Amino acid sequence: MDKVKIFAPATVANVSCGYDAMGFALQGLGDEMFFSKTNSKTVTISKIEGAKLPFEANKNVAGVVALNMLKDSDADFGVDIQIFKNFKPGSGLGSSAASAAGTAFAVNQLLNNKYSNLELTKFAMQGEVTACGSAIADNVAAAIYGGFILVRNYDPLDIIQIPSPSELTATIIHPQIEIKTEDARKVIKSEIPIKTAIAQWANVGGLISGLHTNDFDLISRSLVDHVAEPQRKHLIPHFDTIKNAALKSGALGASISGSGPSIFALSKSTEIANNVAEAMDMVYKNSGIDYNIYVSKISKLGTKII
Amino acid sequence: MDKVKIFAPATVANVSCGYDAMGFALQGLGDEMFFSKTNSKTVTISKIEGAKLPFEANKNVAGVVALNMLKDSDADFGVDIQIFKNFKPGSGLGSSAASAAGTAFAVNQLLNNKYSNLELTKFAMQGEVTACGSAIADNVAAAIYGGFILVRNYDPLDIIQIPSPSELTATIIHPQIEIKTEDARKVIKSEIPIKTAIAQWANVGGLISGLHTNDFDLISRSLVDHVAEPQRKHLIPHFDTIKNAALKSGALGASISGSGPSIFALSKSTEIANNVAEAMDMVYKNSGIDYNIYVSKISKLGTKII
Repeated sequence: MDKVKIFAPATVANVSCGYDAMGFALQGLGDEMFFSKTNSKTVTISKIEGAKLPFEANKNVAGVVALNMLKDSDADFGVDIQIFKNFKPGSGLGSSAASAAGTAFAVNQLLNNKYSNLELTKFAMQGEVTACGSAIADNVAAAIYGGFILVRNYDPLDIIQIPSPSELTATIIHPQIEIKTEDARKVIKSEIPIKTAIAQWANVGGLISGLHTNDFDLISRSLVDHVAEPQRKHLIPHFDTIKNAALKSGALGASISGSGPSIFALSKSTEIANNVAEAMDMVYKNSGIDYNIYVSKISKLGTKII
Repeated sequence: MDKVKIFAPATVANVSCGYDAMGFALQGLGDEMFFSKTNSKTVTISKIEGAKLPFEANKNVAGVVALNMLKDSDADFGVDIQIFKNFKPGSGLGSSAASAAGTAFAVNQLLNNKYSNLELTKFAMQGEVTACGSAIADNVAAAIYGGFILVRNYDPLDIIQIPSPSELTATIIHPQIEIKTEDARKVIKSEIPIKTAIAQWANVGGLISGLHTNDFDLISRSLVDHVAEPQRKHLIPHFDTIKNAALKSGALGASISGSGPSIFALSKSTEIANNVAEAMDMVYKNSGIDYNIYVSKISKLGTKII
């Protein structure tokens, strides 16, 4: 294979109670990327549309991932990358993770599938270091594996795929304000009460069990975040109003996507997810803040060839 | 039904990473209890074998549960209780929970199954208040529902049954030293680092997923307790040696049962569980401490009529 065009999904990390441990991939929102072999033995980025990102390979998330993979595999070719971003960096929807995961997946295609999904996740995590300073796995793992994932452990890295009901549909609102990942992390206290921690891991257990058994009521009861949401929600205008509107419209639960500012809701049908989208729209349409709303099934495939 | 004889299982609470949120019931170890209707409209305890426990109904765990149920249901009869304990109070194996759950289950039989399992758990929790001062649910819920349970929430109470592989077998060593539940709780710090909490709920998620999918490797990797075990293990002589011996013999994991002093291990076959029992025996046999060792499958039924 000398060239490959791929779709790299947007992803929702944390998933309410699953702070820093869970994520899922969206089917209907993501970047397109085009990769072709070159004779240069290096990495070039010849086109970037939809966002202002560096063209220098060693400063670009996709470039860094590709450079590391070519070096690790001692490849006898180079790669040219074209990036077509369909959602904005800084959204809390894993923009850098899509670039990193998309590159890891695509370069692996050019290398005849030399690497496992776990290895691709590790390469993509190096891209996350370039983007936000730390090697976080939740977004990139969701983008590579698809569906719901659990980052059970970092050292050694252990990614668990969690099945989910096929009807499960996400509604996302992206208010176009800036929250830097680093700033959002700073508001999280370094210690939490043991009682809060117990309540949180009981909900993680409930969410994982509900996903395994297609138990929408259990999923709904478990989508409660006692840790990050209470500390971060003030960073997002109208968070409580959006969340209440989503729940009132029938959503199973709603919370902050990653470190925000996007807010996600999960619903048990596309019809309800569309109602949730309308309710979110009603809250924001006179707010004076630009925003986008997306409705999408969960992506079972993650990054894929198109 | 005018009389009923039941088996009330011993239970393991916490289950390593699932501190204060998970529990499971043993098939091969538990108390026998005999209940018969009387005309007195009150509760009497006419026999207690195997442990020194109060005969006054309002001071006895079983008596308290029975009294509350008769009152709540406005029953036109009384109950006499005979208790045959097969494992000792203070073991960390849910001795009071077995009495409480067994009574809740049996009196419900005499009441023609008036109450749901959730309601029975609430009645049994009142017995736990009598025994240890707090209305904890993990042992009693495991004893009533059977199998593995998750206490997802306390208010309102939400008990989730988690399936488990039929081959899963527990090995328990009960060193006959005294650790009071209240004392064991005091050593747990009231705050924990957020990083520790994340690692813990990632393991809870992994354990729940592994139980759902019969993935023994995942169960094994997830049976890691970053919270209670490190703070409590010094209370149990030879804990590290016992745990290492269990793992070396093929156990999937091992940790403290409830607040101790019993230590449990889980294995993927009875053969391995027996090897683990031998290894535990080797560690304790010259210790000068009295101990019992049990090997048991997980009870799928919990409390049952015999």
